[in-house]
Amino acid sequence: MSAEDICLDQLSLADLEKLQQKVLARKAELELSSGTTNKISPSASEQIQKVVVIGGEGQLGQFFCRLFNESGCDVTSLEKQDWADAEQILKSANLVLVAVPIHVTESIINRLTMLSADCVLADITSIKTIPVETMLKVHPGPVVGLHPMFGPGVESISGQTVVVCQARMAAHSSWLIELLNSYGAKLVKVTAAEHDQTMAFVQVLRHFSTVVYGCHLAEESVDIEQVLSMSSPIYRLELAMVGRLFAQSSDLYTEIIFANPQNVGMMKRYIERYTRLLSLVETNDKKRFKREFATTRHWFGKYAEQFLDESSKLLSQARLTRSSEDNKSDQVKESNND
Amino acid sequence: MSAEDICLDQLSLADLEKLQQKVLARKAELELSSGTTNKISPSASEQIQKVVVIGGEGQLGQFFCRLFNESGCDVTSLEKQDWADAEQILKSANLVLVAVPIHVTESIINRLTMLSADCVLADITSIKTIPVETMLKVHPGPVVGLHPMFGPGVESISGQTVVVCQARMAAHSSWLIELLNSYGAKLVKVTAAEHDQTMAFVQVLRHFSTVVYGCHLAEESVDIEQVLSMSSPIYRLELAMVGRLFAQSSDLYTEIIFANPQNVGMMKRYIERYTRLLSLVETNDKKRFKREFATTRHWFGKYAEQFLDESSKLLSQARLTRSSEDNKSDQVKESNND
Repeated sequence: MSAEDICLDQLSLADLEKLQQKVLARKAELELSSGTTNKISPSASEQIQKVVVIGGEGQLGQFFCRLFNESGCDVTSLEKQDWADAEQILKSANLVLVAVPIHVTESIINRLTMLSADCVLADITSIKTIPVETMLKVHPGPVVGLHPMFGPGVESISGQTVVVCQARMAAHSSWLIELLNSYGAKLVKVTAAEHDQTMAFVQVLRHFSTVVYGCHLAEESVDIEQVLSMSSPIYRLELAMVGRLFAQSSDLYTEIIFANPQNVGMMKRYIERYTRLLSLVETNDKKRFKREFATTRHWFGKYAEQFLDESSKLLSQARLTRSSEDNKSDQVKESNND
Repeated sequence: MSAEDICLDQLSLADLEKLQQKVLARKAELELSSGTTNKISPSASEQIQKVVVIGGEGQLGQFFCRLFNESGCDVTSLEKQDWADAEQILKSANLVLVAVPIHVTESIINRLTMLSADCVLADITSIKTIPVETMLKVHPGPVVGLHPMFGPGVESISGQTVVVCQARMAAHSSWLIELLNSYGAKLVKVTAAEHDQTMAFVQVLRHFSTVVYGCHLAEESVDIEQVLSMSSPIYRLELAMVGRLFAQSSDLYTEIIFANPQNVGMMKRYIERYTRLLSLVETNDKKRFKREFATTRHWFGKYAEQFLDESSKLLSQARLTRSSEDNKSDQVKESNND
């Protein structure tokens, strides 16, 4: 059977909605299984690896403990209360993965002076220069910095991006990289400096601007319900992106924003540009404003059209999802009126 | 047949992808037809209305000409070259809809001194206070300001929001409102002042911040490809939202941003808040930063969780769509290697 054989003409809107959910669920199922069929990498399965995850009871720590467990490793979690036995727990490990909150990463790494010479030392912190430098200083053996670009809520690592910063004796950690690869993770190999430079935009500036935007709305006493009732799908989505940040813990966002003081300069340049462009609005200089627009459009190049296309598809999905939800709530309202 | 009867177990990922597209297309088809089945409103069909759309050959003008045509009105478009005959074209109209670019709206309205006393004068400009005030001044009859919250690219007005600012003799424009309603538009009735206050955030601040963010990326010489390769789905989407603006004409965005000089003050307060929060980062004052976060979280209230939920659903759809596109391009790469 193929997609062409299925005829949809008889289905109602509600049934089409159900079918869409079924298709999405089935796709996720297939993608999940195709990502895990070959999950034990050849080299990892040859001999059982002993893995210690420091902070393995944290949310992302648990995720990696499960992953290593499933692939046949012998996994131990090392928590705050276990440091008395740390020497014994750590010394025979093939991999020590540091999965602790970002603000204690450096001090935890500094305690790892007892690893065996060929033990791989790795971390999963959102910044890379400082943790990688600290690992290289403390441990004379193989070192690799990782940054999983996803939260603990994802169902599988398949299709998710993991940034890999190889720092010393890469051959020793090749089994770990192969293992992530065999699970379907997308691996991006860069230096720690390149990582931090990119993250200044991907994480720090975006998170920070979003926090400011939320504070601004609150302090301007904006009426959310009114705004939503008058929003196009695109603005509704943008507002949802702001609100979703505030539904989560402030700790992680604060730590990411504060982790690298070097970013303050870049964020000050953002204000300068904002001020420069706003003065064009204030002096009604449309001509220069459009020139700035054109320069940036040129910089985006082929990506401008590609992004327009990509976001339009998603927005039309958002509109369809919303409108079927609105219909549902309309029905509820009507039945309440009975 | 219902959605439950369709079994998906035999379908490949590629077939599921095709089916998903078919379902979306069929849903859009059904929604379109359900929006137009009852398209002629009772009062509009009783007698043929004579409608003049000024700027009816513009993109959104064409959209409204089609809509009025389909509902049985007698529609004339009045363009630049037709002003010599304007007196005759306009004097017997029941509705004159101003659909010209925002920066000429006011001057065009000022020419409409010859309408008959019961002719409805309406506009579709993105700002409302100035056009509505000008219409009230020029025309002694019924006046209503409209703001369609969608672009000319949408397939149907069904499910789209239209802001309605009633200004004088609302009973005379009730047939127009009923007509929009019968097409499935979501009508939001507010005053012109309320509209402009909300749009300061929904349109002006968001568009302006997006322009600045794009300029900032360009001037910081960010490597888009590297950023994309290291982006989580959420950041990819946010970047796409920036790029999509630059794929479009700068005229409309410039006019919207420049239309209401009152917004400059509000945008300056945004800079003040940005600077205040950035100084907390510079002085490493995490405690006060988290307090600001908590205050804003409290302001979002129930919407924080709702937005998290809503955007998460959309992001997981975005991830699935992307990953099937990535698979396609991987296949292309492989076949090129042969």
